[in-house]
Amino acid sequence: MSYTAPVKDMLFAIEHLAGIEQVAQLPGFEDAGLDTAAAVLEECARFNEGVVAPLNVPGDQNPSSWKDGVVTTTPGFKEAFAQFAEGGWQGLQHPQDFGGQGLPKTIGAACVEMLNSANLSFALCPLLTDGAIEALLTAGSEELKRTYLEKLISGQWTGTMNLTEPQAGSDLALVRTRADRQDDGTYKIFGTKIFITYGEHDMAENIVHLVLARVAGAPEGVKGISLFVVPKFLVNADGSLGARNDAHCVSIEHKLGIKASPTAVLQFGDHGGAVGWLVGEENRGLEYMFIMMNAARYAVGVQGIAVAERAYQHAVQYARERVQSRPVDGSIKASAAIIHHPDVRRMLMTMRSLTEGCRAMAAVAAAAYDASHHHADEQVRKDNATFYEFMVPLVKGFSTEMSLEVTSLGVQVHGGMGFIEETGAAQYYRDARILPIYEGTTAIQANDLVGRKTGRDGGATARAIAAQIEKTEGELHASGSEAARAMGERLAAARTAFVEVVDFVVSQMKADPNAVFAGSVPYLMLAGNLVAGWQMARALLVAEKLSATAQDAAFMQAKVATARFYAEHILVRAPALRDEIVHGGASTMQMALEAF
Amino acid sequence: MSYTAPVKDMLFAIEHLAGIEQVAQLPGFEDAGLDTAAAVLEECARFNEGVVAPLNVPGDQNPSSWKDGVVTTTPGFKEAFAQFAEGGWQGLQHPQDFGGQGLPKTIGAACVEMLNSANLSFALCPLLTDGAIEALLTAGSEELKRTYLEKLISGQWTGTMNLTEPQAGSDLALVRTRADRQDDGTYKIFGTKIFITYGEHDMAENIVHLVLARVAGAPEGVKGISLFVVPKFLVNADGSLGARNDAHCVSIEHKLGIKASPTAVLQFGDHGGAVGWLVGEENRGLEYMFIMMNAARYAVGVQGIAVAERAYQHAVQYARERVQSRPVDGSIKASAAIIHHPDVRRMLMTMRSLTEGCRAMAAVAAAAYDASHHHADEQVRKDNATFYEFMVPLVKGFSTEMSLEVTSLGVQVHGGMGFIEETGAAQYYRDARILPIYEGTTAIQANDLVGRKTGRDGGATARAIAAQIEKTEGELHASGSEAARAMGERLAAARTAFVEVVDFVVSQMKADPNAVFAGSVPYLMLAGNLVAGWQMARALLVAEKLSATAQDAAFMQAKVATARFYAEHILVRAPALRDEIVHGGASTMQMALEAF
Repeated sequence: MSYTAPVKDMLFAIEHLAGIEQVAQLPGFEDAGLDTAAAVLEECARFNEGVVAPLNVPGDQNPSSWKDGVVTTTPGFKEAFAQFAEGGWQGLQHPQDFGGQGLPKTIGAACVEMLNSANLSFALCPLLTDGAIEALLTAGSEELKRTYLEKLISGQWTGTMNLTEPQAGSDLALVRTRADRQDDGTYKIFGTKIFITYGEHDMAENIVHLVLARVAGAPEGVKGISLFVVPKFLVNADGSLGARNDAHCVSIEHKLGIKASPTAVLQFGDHGGAVGWLVGEENRGLEYMFIMMNAARYAVGVQGIAVAERAYQHAVQYARERVQSRPVDGSIKASAAIIHHPDVRRMLMTMRSLTEGCRAMAAVAAAAYDASHHHADEQVRKDNATFYEFMVPLVKGFSTEMSLEVTSLGVQVHGGMGFIEETGAAQYYRDARILPIYEGTTAIQANDLVGRKTGRDGGATARAIAAQIEKTEGELHASGSEAARAMGERLAAARTAFVEVVDFVVSQMKADPNAVFAGSVPYLMLAGNLVAGWQMARALLVAEKLSATAQDAAFMQAKVATARFYAEHILVRAPALRDEIVHGGASTMQMALEAF
Repeated sequence: MSYTAPVKDMLFAIEHLAGIEQVAQLPGFEDAGLDTAAAVLEECARFNEGVVAPLNVPGDQNPSSWKDGVVTTTPGFKEAFAQFAEGGWQGLQHPQDFGGQGLPKTIGAACVEMLNSANLSFALCPLLTDGAIEALLTAGSEELKRTYLEKLISGQWTGTMNLTEPQAGSDLALVRTRADRQDDGTYKIFGTKIFITYGEHDMAENIVHLVLARVAGAPEGVKGISLFVVPKFLVNADGSLGARNDAHCVSIEHKLGIKASPTAVLQFGDHGGAVGWLVGEENRGLEYMFIMMNAARYAVGVQGIAVAERAYQHAVQYARERVQSRPVDGSIKASAAIIHHPDVRRMLMTMRSLTEGCRAMAAVAAAAYDASHHHADEQVRKDNATFYEFMVPLVKGFSTEMSLEVTSLGVQVHGGMGFIEETGAAQYYRDARILPIYEGTTAIQANDLVGRKTGRDGGATARAIAAQIEKTEGELHASGSEAARAMGERLAAARTAFVEVVDFVVSQMKADPNAVFAGSVPYLMLAGNLVAGWQMARALLVAEKLSATAQDAAFMQAKVATARFYAEHILVRAPALRDEIVHGGASTMQMALEAF
């Protein structure tokens, strides 16, 4: 199935919801207005549609393979990655000082979506490299930056994040990899890391591993973790490659999905110790890791949107072609394409509205990120940072959970053919299943939302968002159209439910932490549903206005219909989540452990 | 992962919800009381735990394979099937006249669940054979019965259902397979059938295909379809096998799941015509097919329960063993098994309560089936048949849809390990995905529920069920315990929502069929959720009473806790479905077709 990037919808979100013209007023982004966005997205669409998307099925059928420590990627991946690097796509959002293009996240996020729609497995390599770049930019010494950044940003080398160990997944306090200080200021690294995405491959000359480890004598738990750069090949002073480092891929995993992306077990130090360089200061590794992690979490949320979009396109195409049964309303007197059947429409509209809602939410979060880094006014930066931080678990958690629903519906639309691998719908279902797990499971995102993002400020950020939503409800009321009225009603009910949950979380956090955390994932699902719905409400208002005048009336009418569907089919789920959270804590924890 | 049949919970449902002692008062079932049920279930558990379950992972890793028309099943399958036949398991629910054991469905359904929990792929062969047996029992001539039934019931031969063709899936009006009448009373069959489960294999001497086809001159559409028996090997007068029939397996599918179950493309008549024998009368094939289909639909619903149970057990075991992070309530001052974490508990309880709720619903439906066939009083038979017919789309549709949720949560509980195939959790996720598709997609079940089961009698059956539920609410109110109160409140809200939807369906069916059918799947999900919840409410009442006196107080307390969880986390979803159905029809159909 070919992929067509939804450039029009992306630009709608970038222009009308994220407000690209305000982003273009930020210092450093003067050239990043709507025209730039349109030009970049068009070029990005061409590249991904033409070069990367055709490798998606081959990657699934002929995954990365391992032999004697060497990983060979799917034929075509290496060449496509060379084109990716050549096109400057790795550096899109990175500083011009190191060869990047310095574009805002508001534009970059749409490009990340396209790359992931085209090929989730392929896109993971740049995604992890982005994380490594962020960490080095934030905490790396000048020497580390000089040695690595240009080559990472150009796509000549790639990066990885080495967190997980067999006994330490969500719980990084259990990390055991050891770093021994050497006299020359370097460290020798010893340990085993698992689940290392693109931990070994043949697409780049060098791989720059960012590795969490403990220095001898460090405090126990997460406060004793440091971050190291451990390159696959040591780098000479002139930038050329030196000796092979003692970091070896001993196997790759046999996975449910994203099969083309090699998931490596890396062994550090089996032959005397891998040479590592400290990033920043000792014992501050977790802090730096969260920088990589936060960038990666947002990006994984975008992966959810991306795979949902691809699954939607695949399902629409099938629904247009597959002829089966007469329409129930008698409008066609013969067997018709299944897209005429109400239940198929319900499935497609669910897929579409969830995808567009999450895309809009991610775009708005990206604009806040840009303002949080570039705005001249400190308070504005801070406010935007607070908003963005609140959005990260929603973008990651809600968009990835919704991608499970959307890719499952994608299979269902295909009927029996959906279960046949050659059809292609099943690949999205399999690929998507990792998204609510890696870079922090949905529960980890939800704990973050409950603890750091809601509990810590007593619910202030959450209530501020609710107040903004209430303003949108006022605008919907003022519009008065049937669609706006329907949206306003559902948005108000969902927002009310959200505020009740925030009150519950804040008031019960200390008194009954089990009940609060039993409701954490439902809270995340409620918040994500609401915020995405809020953006659909804003989209509806814009589209109603523009549908009267725009050249593109059909697009605007479709946006209104999609937003209204979101209100009446997705936002309506919110009150049930409230009930589950506020009243369901006790029954979650009630049954005796032995009875399971 | 080993499998332990939930015999205790099955017997609880059989005794207290399905009412096995009433079933044992039906003519023909005098020996089928609780003791028999317990003895059969214990024996069945032993067989499935010991023989069938260990083949589940091997079947996935080393699936059925095709070469030159011959299908070789996974090593061990043939031997296990011989033991299955030897044990008399195929004949459990079939008439003693033909060598069966004539046990009620109330007992048989639990055995079907065990077999499917043990191995979904393996269990499909007997499942399809059951359908063939039902069709022959109902409509086969004496000669056909004499020729085939004993050997099918003994497990010496197996059966298949040949409905689907490339252009005819849900829409059987499009069937093109041709049957040419011969002078000797047989027919020559020509055509291609796809998605034929166990259409070819090496586990039995002969395969008895039941095939839908059109006789020359038959009316168009579904009224011109006839049903034929087309054996793989012709059967001599003495019952021995004769010539190979012209029905050949030209390929098997490469599927997302249930990989050990060969899904065949069968070519009939490429070498002169396959010999077929008419079942019943010409042009009544669809009617007979529905007999097979209804048995199979119920059984597929049980497959959903079965795979959910297996996924639950797998997840519980992992959650007990995997140590990660400290409990949020401070109850343990070190990293603890993840089963201590509220969100893991929420996932496990969701899995458990959905599984138990659907098991209870299926058990009650089975008892109605038994009464509908065996009760002495015609009106009682009729009432039970009506109830059972209403239940079939719920058992099939809701239990299979819930199995997607449960198996997905099963992966999630495992975190990153869930995505690694060797862990085994992913297999359930893949296997389950076919269940809401085959034997009629969820939409097909929902159309049946809306049209034949609700619209046709003006909602009478649905409202009668609602009235029964209201009685249970009264009993919950009378009980007065906190759990009963919570359940009563949620049950009443869900029942009210259900009745509103029934009113909507009945009143709008002609005026706005698109809106009604746009809400058909949500209606099915609401009805299934409610009826399963109703059974959990009944279970709660029984368990509360027994927990004071029973030896097995721990089991009874767990049942109360699970029922309450169901009320507060699953039943609460009902009002949102009502909103979606009653208010969401217009927005489902609003967007222009070109805009997709």
